[in-house]
Amino acid sequence: MDYSYLSHLYCPKCQQTYSPAEPEHLCICGSPLLVAYDMERLSHSWSRDQLQTREPDLWRYHELLPLQDPTYKTSLGEGMTPLIPLPTLQANMNIHKLYMKDEGVIPTGSFKARGAAVGVSKAKELGVEELAMPTNGNAGAAWSLYAARASLKSTIVMPVDAPKITRNECALSGANLFLVDGLISDAGQIVAKAVKQSGLYDVSTLKEPYRIEGKKTMGLEIAEQLGWRVPDVILYPTGGGVGLIGIYKALKELQQLGWIAKDQMPKLVAVQSEGCKPIVEAWEKGLKESTFWPNSETVAFGINVPKAIGDFLVLEALYETEGCAVSIDDTSLLEEQKHITQTEGVFVCPEGAAAFSAARKLRSEGWITEEDEVVVLNTGAGIKYPDTVKMEVPVLNPGDTIKTKV
Amino acid sequence: MDYSYLSHLYCPKCQQTYSPAEPEHLCICGSPLLVAYDMERLSHSWSRDQLQTREPDLWRYHELLPLQDPTYKTSLGEGMTPLIPLPTLQANMNIHKLYMKDEGVIPTGSFKARGAAVGVSKAKELGVEELAMPTNGNAGAAWSLYAARASLKSTIVMPVDAPKITRNECALSGANLFLVDGLISDAGQIVAKAVKQSGLYDVSTLKEPYRIEGKKTMGLEIAEQLGWRVPDVILYPTGGGVGLIGIYKALKELQQLGWIAKDQMPKLVAVQSEGCKPIVEAWEKGLKESTFWPNSETVAFGINVPKAIGDFLVLEALYETEGCAVSIDDTSLLEEQKHITQTEGVFVCPEGAAAFSAARKLRSEGWITEEDEVVVLNTGAGIKYPDTVKMEVPVLNPGDTIKTKV
Repeated sequence: MDYSYLSHLYCPKCQQTYSPAEPEHLCICGSPLLVAYDMERLSHSWSRDQLQTREPDLWRYHELLPLQDPTYKTSLGEGMTPLIPLPTLQANMNIHKLYMKDEGVIPTGSFKARGAAVGVSKAKELGVEELAMPTNGNAGAAWSLYAARASLKSTIVMPVDAPKITRNECALSGANLFLVDGLISDAGQIVAKAVKQSGLYDVSTLKEPYRIEGKKTMGLEIAEQLGWRVPDVILYPTGGGVGLIGIYKALKELQQLGWIAKDQMPKLVAVQSEGCKPIVEAWEKGLKESTFWPNSETVAFGINVPKAIGDFLVLEALYETEGCAVSIDDTSLLEEQKHITQTEGVFVCPEGAAAFSAARKLRSEGWITEEDEVVVLNTGAGIKYPDTVKMEVPVLNPGDTIKTKV
Repeated sequence: MDYSYLSHLYCPKCQQTYSPAEPEHLCICGSPLLVAYDMERLSHSWSRDQLQTREPDLWRYHELLPLQDPTYKTSLGEGMTPLIPLPTLQANMNIHKLYMKDEGVIPTGSFKARGAAVGVSKAKELGVEELAMPTNGNAGAAWSLYAARASLKSTIVMPVDAPKITRNECALSGANLFLVDGLISDAGQIVAKAVKQSGLYDVSTLKEPYRIEGKKTMGLEIAEQLGWRVPDVILYPTGGGVGLIGIYKALKELQQLGWIAKDQMPKLVAVQSEGCKPIVEAWEKGLKESTFWPNSETVAFGINVPKAIGDFLVLEALYETEGCAVSIDDTSLLEEQKHITQTEGVFVCPEGAAAFSAARKLRSEGWITEEDEVVVLNTGAGIKYPDTVKMEVPVLNPGDTIKTKV
């Protein structure tokens, strides 16, 4: 058996194909590239039973990942994050079954670790020496840390306003780190210039084809953790949307392998913020692409993406699965964050909280039914965003007495 | 088969036994209590093979945990944290094999989740309604979040200076939270008074017997992850020392089960800070107990414990395993933290960094030999301590050009 059944790269827009032996970025038509596997051959040599004795990390699916030589595997034990039942919250929302896929329990504390682990491993295999990217924080942290692990250099540019802890992660990793007094789009322009001038390997969202392969393992894991079936609905906080595209790709690949039934596909829901909802607007109008969202703003920094390069793939996944797109205001998501922590003991990130708030909204509107089984992606640990929590706490002096609730 | 083979509680000092059917705290002699299992019966009905198909969390060892009715299991998917090989760092330290047991990859971002998961589950089973504890931060965060998950109330008192993010976690959990303008010992006095007055269930370190059972799963996992054998040395950042006591207890239980050989026991190393090293001082003098360390201070907040209630058990484990106790100054541990992040891509917590720094020190002194296989516990995610990192990062304006290293 091969370690990977990687076949080729292809453009989902113009169908042009590319060899995976060389570093590739966008298609000549400007579209992101996707990774294809030799599914026919793989379906004959791989079975679900083989997974049982494998390590609980995302490399358990290595046949369906792009890395061909395991020597270059750059891993910190990422993946197989818990799928947590939420009995109190599901009763509160009147949903039959509600689960949280908790991506806070992963190296670097956010789901960006998946894309970074696979992307950096593949970059190393391709002979890359230095990568570059703009970031809103978590992606830069993950990629620079995995790059350090792989002994690759990295150049990272992030807004001054990005969460401070992600700045610390990048700085400590030894990355060539710059802040920009502007938005991620400004950071993107600075990176693009550097890439052009210095030949750095551009790992901006979907500008290399392998990050999505790491992200798709969320879909593989959900199916495996549910006993090789899918839920009725999956909600995903959507900035660049790579995870949603990845989950959709993963489930179609599982259908091709015959590991889940051909008609099994959850409704996929893209959750955005009221202050930045280009995908929601496009979906409501039935459009195939989104329009740049001006003056975007939200406390959920990770989904502050005014125009995603893979927007057409996100929208396609929503249409194909009969899903939808929903936006949530900051007040509601912060309220939901507090509620989830108090009822289920998970301090979710603001983006995850938005997705839970969306589940509540869709249930109240009847779009999610009482019988549905629902999985919500919490894309990171709330501890990475200390500034979203404002609570007043009484201060005592030594020797003071407290009144207890009992 | 029973879910748990819990037998009874016993005092390691005076050998008094107690029934596990009632909530118990300290022995009448003042010592912490330990949990005993029916090892004879368990060794006949449980085999290592049975673990293969179990979930990758600490409940895979439920026969050797105190919870008797799984209905009360309070889990967020904690455990089976990665055991990460560190090829670059081991070469740098000239150690044959060096691993990090990464407890940053766990709910709440610290190893305190293990004690909280098992402790809260057992408290729920015992009919407890409200628990109380003083904390330096991470324990309070973990216990209050797991309490929320179990619908238990909690009263938490922590120093004003404890890491801010842990304060947020407690506050968001809905705990009855108080800050004290003092040390954890001041918080402890306030909690003790509240416990006495209101009958709250005291879950201070080792004042209930079940936290240690959760912590011991680190030892079970290390043995399983190494293929049912132990390393030569395990280094553990030691504040209260519950994890070290737990790992020692776990490995002795595995010996009794015959899952590891009778003569297999790693040398256990307690790592403390130069600014708070009561265990190191006691070990150097060959004493059985430590003395209160006055005016303690260190950036590694989690090991700022001037006098641990279980100090005699920690020291016993060091003597019995021919281990040792080492102290590290703050400058060295911060330097090591930066070095680990840059070479291996893991942003370890200051306490974990101290343990790595201790490995380096012991290797340079020859106490750790070139042939040794060494496991270091990183007890939490560095992202919980943003203030320990001070880095200067250049700020650009939109449109600026950067100089890259290539």
